[in-house]
Amino acid sequence: MATLVLLRHGQSDWNQKNLFTGWVDVPLSATGEAEARRGGELMAEAGLLPDIVHTSLLRRAISTANLALDACDRHWIPVVRNWRLNERHYGALQGKDKKQTLAEFGEEQFMLWRRSYDVPPPPIEPGSEFSQEGDPRYADLGADLPATECLADVVTRFLPYYEGSVIPDLQAGKVVLLAAHGNSLRALVKHLDGISDEAIAGLNIPTGIPLRYELDDDFKPITPGGEYLDPDAAKEAAAAVANQGR
Amino acid sequence: MATLVLLRHGQSDWNQKNLFTGWVDVPLSATGEAEARRGGELMAEAGLLPDIVHTSLLRRAISTANLALDACDRHWIPVVRNWRLNERHYGALQGKDKKQTLAEFGEEQFMLWRRSYDVPPPPIEPGSEFSQEGDPRYADLGADLPATECLADVVTRFLPYYEGSVIPDLQAGKVVLLAAHGNSLRALVKHLDGISDEAIAGLNIPTGIPLRYELDDDFKPITPGGEYLDPDAAKEAAAAVANQGR
Repeated sequence: MATLVLLRHGQSDWNQKNLFTGWVDVPLSATGEAEARRGGELMAEAGLLPDIVHTSLLRRAISTANLALDACDRHWIPVVRNWRLNERHYGALQGKDKKQTLAEFGEEQFMLWRRSYDVPPPPIEPGSEFSQEGDPRYADLGADLPATECLADVVTRFLPYYEGSVIPDLQAGKVVLLAAHGNSLRALVKHLDGISDEAIAGLNIPTGIPLRYELDDDFKPITPGGEYLDPDAAKEAAAAVANQGR
Repeated sequence: MATLVLLRHGQSDWNQKNLFTGWVDVPLSATGEAEARRGGELMAEAGLLPDIVHTSLLRRAISTANLALDACDRHWIPVVRNWRLNERHYGALQGKDKKQTLAEFGEEQFMLWRRSYDVPPPPIEPGSEFSQEGDPRYADLGADLPATECLADVVTRFLPYYEGSVIPDLQAGKVVLLAAHGNSLRALVKHLDGISDEAIAGLNIPTGIPLRYELDDDFKPITPGGEYLDPDAAKEAAAAVANQGR
């Protein structure tokens, strides 16, 4: 049996402002920092202590991991960072107001971009201030640097990392923490729980609440959906995420 | 040519209280956090951007690295952590007040423990609240877990790590940041600059000010002593460290 813990970063400055963020590297808000610390306290209370953490290359996931691990006295564990855990690239929507986008494009197009499995937003304009061209952290990606992504694209780039780098840690008996983003974690949960392309649209992962999966020898969840360390807060928060942009 | 940057953690809660800390895992004070951010700003201003960071397993060095790297937009670089970068283990002095220790044991004994090369303080009592027995981060050390250390002991445990894990990064052309402690960094500077066992007693490394070494093909410093990114502040701070306990 292996233990995997998923932690979605807390509120960022742009969540607070209701902007599409994607790969734009915004910091946590003060609320997000408190959420991260609370996530660490929940792990400490549950005696669920990670042996290794994998994060994206984005500040809001990195800070969440740092704060949560500090709060459960595991600040010293090994860290691995990889772009494949990044949030979905939101293409031309990066930096745009969610409410405005909803008003401009209408409910149907808005929900298609936000929740369809395989329809990406239009690609980001080259030279846009919200583009990641020239960012040194992605220098090795070359042509793999996305200009937009749908959830299917995130599944395609994240699962090879999960299989090649996370599963070996689980196999070694380590409790693995993944500190990541709404859509990279949805991509993983879709895979773990065998959720259909259609049904994944309805799944929201709340921020800052550790989600524990116990996995069997085939790395399938023993309890489908896993277990939130604070189930009541998770239910409330998931409902709030679903209402973003309204 | 290779570039190595040394960064001593900023003020901790116990620096502030003037207690011997060693391996006790105390957090940075608010002043120490500000010092760490300032260290990162100095690196950004100098265009000295680390490609990889090595830290100790102690919170004050880990937080310093996190805050400094965040301030120079390099929060996403790979991190390696190892106990061999830890502060000197202060044995039975851990948790003791420096001024009180000076009064109790006298100037000569006090300076011998603080600054002699090869006289360790008495070993920490088993079961002491300031001992690291049973700490999971050191579980793999077994009999290597120190009960006290002199600077010579720190040299002995740190240099194999420097040669086996840091030099390969330098050889790969990476700018390497070491976020560590007064005595682990003194051990390294002694080695780099070929300082004698006697002369190292007079060397104090200031907190929070990045110290850049450019190294030649044999990993010898091109400028002995390296260059502080804020030389005036470094001079003042080193003098203040020398007066601790007075």
